[in-house]
Amino acid sequence: MFPGFRRGSAWVQGPTGADDNGRRSFLKLGAAAAGSVLAGAGAKAAEPGAPPADAPWSLSLGAGVVDRPYGQPSKFERDVIRRNVPWLTGSRESSVSFSPIQNLTGIITPNGLFFERYHAGRPEVDPQQHRLLIHGLVERPLLLSMNDIVRFPAVSRIHFIECPANGGMEWRAAQLNSLQFTHGMIGCAEWTGVKLSTLLDEVGLKKEAKWVMVEGADGAHMNRSLPLEKCLDDCLVVYAQNGEALRPDQGYPLRLVVPGWEGNVSVKWLRRVKVGDKPWFSREETSKYTDLMPDGTSRGFTWVIDAKSVITFPCPEKPVPGPGLHEIRGLAWSGNGRIKRVDVSFDGGMNWHTAELKEPILPKALTRFTIPWRWEGQPTLLESRAIDETGYVQPTIAQLRTVRGSNSIYHNNAIQTWQVKPDGSIYDVQLG
Amino acid sequence: MFPGFRRGSAWVQGPTGADDNGRRSFLKLGAAAAGSVLAGAGAKAAEPGAPPADAPWSLSLGAGVVDRPYGQPSKFERDVIRRNVPWLTGSRESSVSFSPIQNLTGIITPNGLFFERYHAGRPEVDPQQHRLLIHGLVERPLLLSMNDIVRFPAVSRIHFIECPANGGMEWRAAQLNSLQFTHGMIGCAEWTGVKLSTLLDEVGLKKEAKWVMVEGADGAHMNRSLPLEKCLDDCLVVYAQNGEALRPDQGYPLRLVVPGWEGNVSVKWLRRVKVGDKPWFSREETSKYTDLMPDGTSRGFTWVIDAKSVITFPCPEKPVPGPGLHEIRGLAWSGNGRIKRVDVSFDGGMNWHTAELKEPILPKALTRFTIPWRWEGQPTLLESRAIDETGYVQPTIAQLRTVRGSNSIYHNNAIQTWQVKPDGSIYDVQLG
Repeated sequence: MFPGFRRGSAWVQGPTGADDNGRRSFLKLGAAAAGSVLAGAGAKAAEPGAPPADAPWSLSLGAGVVDRPYGQPSKFERDVIRRNVPWLTGSRESSVSFSPIQNLTGIITPNGLFFERYHAGRPEVDPQQHRLLIHGLVERPLLLSMNDIVRFPAVSRIHFIECPANGGMEWRAAQLNSLQFTHGMIGCAEWTGVKLSTLLDEVGLKKEAKWVMVEGADGAHMNRSLPLEKCLDDCLVVYAQNGEALRPDQGYPLRLVVPGWEGNVSVKWLRRVKVGDKPWFSREETSKYTDLMPDGTSRGFTWVIDAKSVITFPCPEKPVPGPGLHEIRGLAWSGNGRIKRVDVSFDGGMNWHTAELKEPILPKALTRFTIPWRWEGQPTLLESRAIDETGYVQPTIAQLRTVRGSNSIYHNNAIQTWQVKPDGSIYDVQLG
Repeated sequence: MFPGFRRGSAWVQGPTGADDNGRRSFLKLGAAAAGSVLAGAGAKAAEPGAPPADAPWSLSLGAGVVDRPYGQPSKFERDVIRRNVPWLTGSRESSVSFSPIQNLTGIITPNGLFFERYHAGRPEVDPQQHRLLIHGLVERPLLLSMNDIVRFPAVSRIHFIECPANGGMEWRAAQLNSLQFTHGMIGCAEWTGVKLSTLLDEVGLKKEAKWVMVEGADGAHMNRSLPLEKCLDDCLVVYAQNGEALRPDQGYPLRLVVPGWEGNVSVKWLRRVKVGDKPWFSREETSKYTDLMPDGTSRGFTWVIDAKSVITFPCPEKPVPGPGLHEIRGLAWSGNGRIKRVDVSFDGGMNWHTAELKEPILPKALTRFTIPWRWEGQPTLLESRAIDETGYVQPTIAQLRTVRGSNSIYHNNAIQTWQVKPDGSIYDVQLG
């Protein structure tokens, strides 16, 4: 897979192990590491073939089954949590939390670490009382209970959801120096529910039907307008995430998932779908989720998440541990379909190298990429750029600003630059 | 997708709504359900086009972000938990818990509900102190820290893990009347780690190498022998599950995943990989994980999970809510590769109907199937049978007993029969 690295490689190097590109430095680590453990825990492992010395937990009974009927992470992972930026919003009820994507692997975001975005806090909805009203320009308005909804044919799809404000603080070069805060308003999950098209088919659309309003049961009555074509294409009315019921954070017991579009249209605690012939121009789609352009006008209904990517290792929270061979890892996604290619640059975008994409490569889902990288302390500007199946290429922040200025909050899908300092630490920088 | 059901269908029927196979019964539900809500919460929704009446949580602020930095399920889901069978084992430290698969959707099992199997309880391993020793018939033995291991090229794969005792109580027709207890020792996750072949390549195999012993850091020092070919094929040394660090239940900080093979060889809290030229015949692979045959001999090293399936709706915990059209749902899996087809029978195996398989269909992973079913109270014996890409067909329990007798505990992959009673309740039965 990585020619030239296979036998002579040194993925693992001790802090003192200068790389000589071959067997010797690697053996050095093996001996050093083994020695350090022997010093701490007795000499048993010194005999060839003997088992390692027992740790305390290898000499006792652990906890029994179902002492935690619903499992929890290890106490040693207590710092892997969602975080918010206190100065960013006036309250925590109309606010966001960021997912610790610097700690995550693969393409599934665990439910406990999925980012939050509330407009009036997180309601605790009783599923027995919750109803979904479908009305407006339909032949047969319906009010559905959760028991009704789970009877319709079920579909499961793996899709990302990204808040369009992800990266919003970077329009004006905030330099947060944190992957969690620059890119953590994204997650990807296996969503299960009913196709919205199935429900619209049941109520019967009138021929004037062109738009759909979706509304949440939270105190904000958060609502958005969606063109009917998208609703009939791939929208899902979802009751489960990664195999279990939605979490309250994610709209329990029912939410919309609008694949590939900005997260706020995937309305949570979904209570209403109203069919009409024109958009509603609701508060959240006029005063809020619009893009203020350099000439003072605002672009509205900019729903699609264009292709984007970011390197997740190394990153400010995960510096380079030392010289040697490393695997650069990252995430790419596009609201327009599948990721076709990801390029990585080590010199701030002057030269690009094609990364390896990891299966499965699903439409409108996170996709992992990796590329090997040998680092000996040299100055480095790491970047990744995603290209999706439409041919769209992720832009630089300079290219974005040429079109959009720097008044925007939403839809910053610019290439992220990480500067690698000689000590391996990583800084969030913007190139001119 | 379901010809004949599209327009005249009635996926949703109230308890009183007799099916007349058309629009009328469906409209009846809509009106009835809407009426019941109006009575409870005011008449607002009576005006055509008006929003539904507000529930209490629609009239107040909810909780703020990061009040739970690590998210949790809704309090209304408190009964969706892992459970054990108290009489099954002598202690809870050497025992199992069962996943509530009757409540799960899609193919990803959430980490909080993944089944547990401990041989000496669940240790709380400190990842800073944990080491993996790779030694035996190798050129360069290595002792690796967790920091070392995450530097090797990472791979993510979606695979099931099933305890071979899943269904073990049914060999002698226990009739537990519970999907959770007949089939709940299975889960499927996105596992991230390093290929075992990558690590074996780093240490360099001696030419006599033929077998590998894997050992856990729990108090049982649980260990198993594996043929080298399997280790070089698709085994993974795993540190993450569904995007986050392994849970302590699942081997935190490091476990083996042996795709498609019985769960106990996917050793948790992995501390040692020893290469040898013959199997070790350890306690767990001689006294425990063998199959006692009718002639008194025992089969050993029966690792592979053969093709298996089960209907998850309806099931004893999820009875049929009433007459009408339903979607039968289930899970299928095979340790030999992909599921090729699933058949469903409504008459105890006399006639079979091909179910729809849901994408993605991944090798050695759970696969969802569905089939529509109209039920008007008639006597029904529901069964599913899986066929995998090797052509293997899931057997009946009678076919299995012909070969294996009824002394076995492990590797019961028989077809499950659910009897549907006139009131919609479901019973676990075994046909003669």
